[in-house]
Amino acid sequence: MHGRDLNDQSVQALWHRAEKAGLSRRRFMVLLGSSGAAAVLAACTPRTTTPAPSPTTPSPTPVRNINKPTPEQFFIPLGTNAETRLEVMANREYAMPNGLFFVRSHTSSPLVDPKTWTLSIEGAGVARPFQLTYDELLKLPTHTVTRYVECAGNGRSFFDTLLKNPAQGGQWRLGAYGVAEWTGVRLRDILNPAGILSAAVDVMPIGMDSTRVERPMPVDKAMEDDTLVAYMMNGDIIPIDHGFPARVLAPGWVGINSVKWVNRITVSTGPIRTDKNTTSYVLVGPDYQPQPPALGPPVNSQVIKSALCLPWPATLRAGQQKVVGYAWSPFGKIRGVEMSTDGGKTFENASLAGPNVEQAGTRWEYSFSATPAVTSLTPRATDEAGNVQHDISEQKWNQQGYLFGAMVPHPVEVK
Amino acid sequence: MHGRDLNDQSVQALWHRAEKAGLSRRRFMVLLGSSGAAAVLAACTPRTTTPAPSPTTPSPTPVRNINKPTPEQFFIPLGTNAETRLEVMANREYAMPNGLFFVRSHTSSPLVDPKTWTLSIEGAGVARPFQLTYDELLKLPTHTVTRYVECAGNGRSFFDTLLKNPAQGGQWRLGAYGVAEWTGVRLRDILNPAGILSAAVDVMPIGMDSTRVERPMPVDKAMEDDTLVAYMMNGDIIPIDHGFPARVLAPGWVGINSVKWVNRITVSTGPIRTDKNTTSYVLVGPDYQPQPPALGPPVNSQVIKSALCLPWPATLRAGQQKVVGYAWSPFGKIRGVEMSTDGGKTFENASLAGPNVEQAGTRWEYSFSATPAVTSLTPRATDEAGNVQHDISEQKWNQQGYLFGAMVPHPVEVK
Repeated sequence: MHGRDLNDQSVQALWHRAEKAGLSRRRFMVLLGSSGAAAVLAACTPRTTTPAPSPTTPSPTPVRNINKPTPEQFFIPLGTNAETRLEVMANREYAMPNGLFFVRSHTSSPLVDPKTWTLSIEGAGVARPFQLTYDELLKLPTHTVTRYVECAGNGRSFFDTLLKNPAQGGQWRLGAYGVAEWTGVRLRDILNPAGILSAAVDVMPIGMDSTRVERPMPVDKAMEDDTLVAYMMNGDIIPIDHGFPARVLAPGWVGINSVKWVNRITVSTGPIRTDKNTTSYVLVGPDYQPQPPALGPPVNSQVIKSALCLPWPATLRAGQQKVVGYAWSPFGKIRGVEMSTDGGKTFENASLAGPNVEQAGTRWEYSFSATPAVTSLTPRATDEAGNVQHDISEQKWNQQGYLFGAMVPHPVEVK
Repeated sequence: MHGRDLNDQSVQALWHRAEKAGLSRRRFMVLLGSSGAAAVLAACTPRTTTPAPSPTTPSPTPVRNINKPTPEQFFIPLGTNAETRLEVMANREYAMPNGLFFVRSHTSSPLVDPKTWTLSIEGAGVARPFQLTYDELLKLPTHTVTRYVECAGNGRSFFDTLLKNPAQGGQWRLGAYGVAEWTGVRLRDILNPAGILSAAVDVMPIGMDSTRVERPMPVDKAMEDDTLVAYMMNGDIIPIDHGFPARVLAPGWVGINSVKWVNRITVSTGPIRTDKNTTSYVLVGPDYQPQPPALGPPVNSQVIKSALCLPWPATLRAGQQKVVGYAWSPFGKIRGVEMSTDGGKTFENASLAGPNVEQAGTRWEYSFSATPAVTSLTPRATDEAGNVQHDISEQKWNQQGYLFGAMVPHPVEVK
């Protein structure tokens, strides 16, 4: 609630909605008091689809919240999630090794048995629902793409530290981002055999984690060339924390769309509403209008960003220095990266280095003469569609801190 | 016992030993009957070092026997171990991805907390015992090498199927072998600061698994350029199943020497005897003499081998075909690989392909006109030291099936 974004009228409207959904006034007040409007809506939002557990796939065993090792030398712990310290990528290749990839999960990682796992394609939007086994999935034509995956809230901490207006949720800096090579089957090559109806509207993958995370996307996004059901990551079996045995890859869209541990994909003939597109992963704030039953417009596409592969804060020796970083955009390749060593007053071109991949970004490097006068390094990325990272003054605030895209001055001390 | 390798005299000698160690005749007979001489010796072998648990490192939590997913499409399950199906490497690069790497562990993989883990260097052979934290280990000068790791029993199943004389233990074909890029600290850079005495004889790393696997090596091996305490594998955090937070890498030597989950390294001033160099990982058989207290000579160096990246058995289409494989030797790079399509009567040269690395081997490829007359493909590797894979008739048998190095005809059906 945080008293900022819901006036009395909004609270009243919420109460009417909650009452209609059968919530007691007491329960309403408890939800409102503890977790705000989102909690109320989660409790009363009607669900267009309420899929029953798939009869053929037993529930997976949960393993530790994060299954892989995430030592603090490589990760910033964020509650049940882990942010990659981008400095560990300074001397590595473009793609992020699986073990170093950030982890954002809504629950403990489930341990799924590939012998009993199936992927069901179902719903009113398909003519011929069917199921695939793991073995059948592996035998379908494969497609490999290099793409980034990024949490919708990557950069969220800067709403607080740069915009001075904190947002709810994990306080990521910029390491909830990673590039990998994904191998799997085009989602459309799985949907088409099911006979997608012309009336189909939304495609919703559902995860096997304990809360069965689900987030719909329009059919058009699902049918794109590089929207996959991926089972390999960087040429390796996809790790448990990243969706074994299979996950969706929805390039350029917020991470929640790349549903992990997927075992059901339902296709609807009307818009699907879930808590993940009505109460969370929607933009709530003074610059956004509610879209009932959603609290605000859903967050789909990401925004252009850049980051340095340096500790936070960084210490550099005076003299000639080379720093490296990443830049990425959901709108295409990166056209260029500039760097400011004076807090954003003036910029010089950095050099792009290595692969530059659509919806995956590129690495870049910048050489400069480091002096104690330099207290920050501020990269600014531009993509081939002409999008440029904007100044913090232009950053729109939203309650849940999605889509932070402003330039970030990386604090450095030159000694 | 298997009645084959211990005559009455040997049994008597065993009994004298067991009696001296305090075993009752009844216990002796039970051990002898159930698991043979190895069990007797395990029960009565005096241990030069019996290290107490390190006071500063709490016991790790065991996780599932194998922590990572090992679907049968990628692995052959072998009890609590998993063999890589080498055919999954046919279209991949040289090094084996971490998730596809074979697993051989004596216990469940332990989950070690890097925040409390320490590595102790200790024993009578060092002047200044000390401990390293994970953070301190990471800050030492790093060294990166590409090397293979291979189970001592890799190829063991061929004692049965080719030599018609089965050996005890996991019936691996050839996939208990994998190449990776290992990054860590040279073991000598850890031993030297501890002040290795000139009287030092053996260096024994000890693992944190529940049985605390330990296997000594001579100081000379420990001091080699490429003997490491590794904490990265293929540029990634070393996975739990492969020794996180750190393992030893003893290139060219049987896998047991590359102790996983290491937290103690003890340096002795006399030969160290453990069950892993007296009763197991020793050569017992008609061609080998006991080396009391060991049942036979310890297995240290591996032997030269080659293998095809094809399913077992493989089906190939008639016509021009290209097959690929690996060849590896502990004695240096691979000089060449030949192939026989007629069961070993005649050989043609295959082509080496890609990196050819000392004690890691190389990939190779062979193009030929496949006809239904071809029922096997038999590669034969030669290393730069002149070692050549021998015929099965020259393969020495040993009870525990170590060091299988003969040429292996890979069964194929050409259709």
